[in-house]
Amino acid sequence: MARSDPQNHAAGGDVEASGRRQFLKRSAFASAAIGAATLPTAANAADAAANLPPNVPEWMKAQGAGFLNPPYGQPSPFEKGVVRKLPDAPAAFPSATRTPLQNLFGTITPNGLFFERHHGGVPAINPDAHRLMVHGLVDRPLLLSMNDLMRYPSVSRVHYLECSGNSAAEWFRPAGKTAQDIHGLVSCAEWTGVPLSIILDEAGVKPEGKWLLAEGADAAAMTRSVPLDKAMNDALLVYAQNGEMLRPEQGYPVRLFLPGFEGNMSIKWLRRIKVGTAPFHTREETSKYSDLMPDGSARQFTFVMDAKSVITTPSGGQKLLQQGFHEISGIAWTGSGRIRAVDVSVDGGRTWREATLQGPVQSMALTRFRLPWRWNGEPAILQSRATDETGYTQPTRSQLIAVRGQNSLYHYNAIQSWRVAAGGEVTNVHA
Amino acid sequence: MARSDPQNHAAGGDVEASGRRQFLKRSAFASAAIGAATLPTAANAADAAANLPPNVPEWMKAQGAGFLNPPYGQPSPFEKGVVRKLPDAPAAFPSATRTPLQNLFGTITPNGLFFERHHGGVPAINPDAHRLMVHGLVDRPLLLSMNDLMRYPSVSRVHYLECSGNSAAEWFRPAGKTAQDIHGLVSCAEWTGVPLSIILDEAGVKPEGKWLLAEGADAAAMTRSVPLDKAMNDALLVYAQNGEMLRPEQGYPVRLFLPGFEGNMSIKWLRRIKVGTAPFHTREETSKYSDLMPDGSARQFTFVMDAKSVITTPSGGQKLLQQGFHEISGIAWTGSGRIRAVDVSVDGGRTWREATLQGPVQSMALTRFRLPWRWNGEPAILQSRATDETGYTQPTRSQLIAVRGQNSLYHYNAIQSWRVAAGGEVTNVHA
Repeated sequence: MARSDPQNHAAGGDVEASGRRQFLKRSAFASAAIGAATLPTAANAADAAANLPPNVPEWMKAQGAGFLNPPYGQPSPFEKGVVRKLPDAPAAFPSATRTPLQNLFGTITPNGLFFERHHGGVPAINPDAHRLMVHGLVDRPLLLSMNDLMRYPSVSRVHYLECSGNSAAEWFRPAGKTAQDIHGLVSCAEWTGVPLSIILDEAGVKPEGKWLLAEGADAAAMTRSVPLDKAMNDALLVYAQNGEMLRPEQGYPVRLFLPGFEGNMSIKWLRRIKVGTAPFHTREETSKYSDLMPDGSARQFTFVMDAKSVITTPSGGQKLLQQGFHEISGIAWTGSGRIRAVDVSVDGGRTWREATLQGPVQSMALTRFRLPWRWNGEPAILQSRATDETGYTQPTRSQLIAVRGQNSLYHYNAIQSWRVAAGGEVTNVHA
Repeated sequence: MARSDPQNHAAGGDVEASGRRQFLKRSAFASAAIGAATLPTAANAADAAANLPPNVPEWMKAQGAGFLNPPYGQPSPFEKGVVRKLPDAPAAFPSATRTPLQNLFGTITPNGLFFERHHGGVPAINPDAHRLMVHGLVDRPLLLSMNDLMRYPSVSRVHYLECSGNSAAEWFRPAGKTAQDIHGLVSCAEWTGVPLSIILDEAGVKPEGKWLLAEGADAAAMTRSVPLDKAMNDALLVYAQNGEMLRPEQGYPVRLFLPGFEGNMSIKWLRRIKVGTAPFHTREETSKYSDLMPDGSARQFTFVMDAKSVITTPSGGQKLLQQGFHEISGIAWTGSGRIRAVDVSVDGGRTWREATLQGPVQSMALTRFRLPWRWNGEPAILQSRATDETGYTQPTRSQLIAVRGQNSLYHYNAIQSWRVAAGGEVTNVHA
C-alpha cells in the first residue's frame, strides 16, 4: 500500500476523489481540520485526545427494535420533516406535491418522495382488470392485460421527470423559499418497462400513422399527442420504478414514459394509444401546456425540457453555521441527452468554476455536481449553470425573459440565485 | 423517420433493443403476436378489432384519491404481498429479513425492501446525539457529530450489499422455494457519504497503523476488523441511501460501507473507528463469519464476495402460463469489480447463450441480465452463470463443494438451477 500516493486514495478509481483531495491540500483544508475545529464539547475533545471511546449511549444498553410487521420499511422518525410538500395555501383539491430536493443526496429520488401531479386524483386500479388498447391506424389492434404486457422484452433506464410548470412562480418574483418550494416538481428514478416501439411493431403502424394519442385511466382521462418519431425512438411503457411496481400516484400499473419531454406527456394509468395522422389537440395541449409569447402568439408542442440546474446544498431556508469549508452540491438535467458541464459561481455570476460531475452521467437523468468552497463569512450569491451535450447553456433570468416574455407559466429554466447573508442565512433572490 | 430501419427502434440508442428485435424476428415472435394470441376475451378482441376503446372502468367515473397526509408515499394495496420476508419458523428474535427478488425489476432495491440483518435489534438513534470517534494510532483523534461529518466532501456510488450467509441452506439441499427464500440477503442502492480516506487523512494515521476496528452503536456493539488498504481505497462513511437519509435498519444515521466485502463488515450505526497494527479478532470474525474447510482448518478474513447470479424471472414458486415467448431475467454481481458476462442455459448447463447486460454496468453493483426464450412446453432446467472482469466464473455446486466441502455456511455462490415442469411450475432443484 502506498498511502502517500493520491491515486491510491481515489474512491472508485475515478478522478473525482483525487481532484477533491488536491483541492483540500491546496486550500489547507487538511490542516484546518474540520473535525478538530468543531469538536462538540471540550469534554468530548478531551476524551478523544485521551483515546477513550465516546460515552456509551442509551441505545446500546438494551436490545433494539425487532422487525416491522408488515415488513415494508419506513424512514426514521427523526426524518419526519422530509416529505413531499403540499401547497401552503389550502385548496379544494390540490394538484401537486413537491420533492424535498434540499434534503436529498445523489440522484435517485425515493418513490415515497417522488413529486406528484394529478389532474383528477389518483385512481385505485386493480391491475388484473386494467387493459391497454392499441388501435387507430394499425394493422392489428391490441388489447393487452398486464400479464400480456409484462411478457414482452424489457429495459431499465435511469431518467428524470419534470413538470413543465416547475419553477413557474420565478417568472414574476422570488416567491418560493426552498429548493423544494421552487423546483420540487423534478425527480429521478430507475424505470423498467417495454420499449413502446416493440408494441407498435406488434400492432403494425400503417404508413400514414404519424402521431399517437395517449389516454390515462384517471377521472381526467388525461390525454396528450405524441409524435411517432419519439414513440419509436426511446418511449417506454413503464410498470416499475426503482425496482418495484409503480406507486399509485405514478401511474400504477402502467404509464407512458417519454424521456426528456415535459412531464404530463408521460401519461399515467395508461389505457389507450390511438395512432392517427396528426396531433389530436387535446385540452391539455391547447389552452394548457402551451407558451404564450411576447408577440401574443402561443407556442404549442414545446415538448423537450431544456437544460437546468439548482444548487441544493446550501439552498434557500438553510443556514451556514460556520465559516470555512463547505461542499456546494446540486443537481442538473436536460431533455437533450447528457449534461456536459456545470459551472458554479459564488459571486453572482462574475466568475465561474467548473464543478465535478458524479459519474456515470446518464442521458436524461439527474446529474449530481459538487464543488468545494471556503466561505469567508461575507455575503455571497451562489449560482449554478448547466451545459448539455448539444452545447446549450442554461440562461440567466434576463436572457430567458428577453426571449419568452412573462406571459406564460411553463418551461422556466433560468439560473437560480441563492444569497448567503453574513449571518449564514440562505435566501432565494433574483440576481 | 425510417421505421423500417431496426437501428431507429433501439431504445436509448444502444445495441440491446435492436439485438432483441432481431431475436424476435428470427423467432417469428412478431408474427406469433403475443398480444393478439392472448387477448383476454373474445368480446374484448372484437372491441379491439372494431377500433373501439376498452370499456370505461369504474375508476375513471369519479375523482380519484387526494394526497396522502403525511405525504410520504406507499405502494399500491395490490402489492401488499411484495414485502421483506420474515423467517418461516417463528424465532424468539429473528435476525434477518429477505428482499423479494422475484418481484423486483432493474437493479435498484427500494429502501423499504432492502434486506435486513441485525445482531441486537435496531437502535433508535437521535442523530443529533450520535458521535463518530476516530482514535488509536492517529495523530489527531476526532470526535465527529453528524453535522461535522456531513460537511466533508461526498460521493455517490451504486453498490450491492450481500450477507455472506446468503443462500447458505443450499450447501445441503434445495431448501428454499423462491429467489427471496434462497438468495434474498442481497440488495442494491445508490449510497452517498464521505470517503473514509478523507477522514483518516484528517486524523493522520501513524505509519504503524495497518488495520481498523469498526464498532456499531447497537446493543450487539457489532465489531469487525478492516484492513487499512481497503479503508483508504474505496470505503465510505455512508449517511444516505437511494437519495434519502439511511433507514434505521440500515444504520441510521451513519454506516461504514465496504464495496464488495461481506455485508456485516459494513458496520451499521457506526460509532467508532480505532486504528491498530493488526486484526482485532472480534467475536464476529472468529467463531462466526469464518469458513470451516474440509481439512478442519478455518479460513478467516474471507472478505471479498465472489461472482454470483440468479434468474429472478421465471424463478421458484412462479408458473409459466403459456408456451411461446418469455424473457428470462435476473441479477448478477461480484465483489471484484464489474460483471463481464452472464451466460444462461435452459438445458441444465449443456448449452449456454450469452445474456444482454443492462448498462451502465457499474463496479460492485447488481447488474440486470436478460435473454429472450421460447418455451416449447417441455421440462427445462434454467441456470445463469456470471463471469466478472477478473475472469472468475461462478462455479457449479459440485465445483464449489469440491473446494469448500460442506462444513461452513458462508460464501455460497454456486449456480442456481430452476426446474420448469411440463405444467409450467418452477421449482428449486440441484442439477
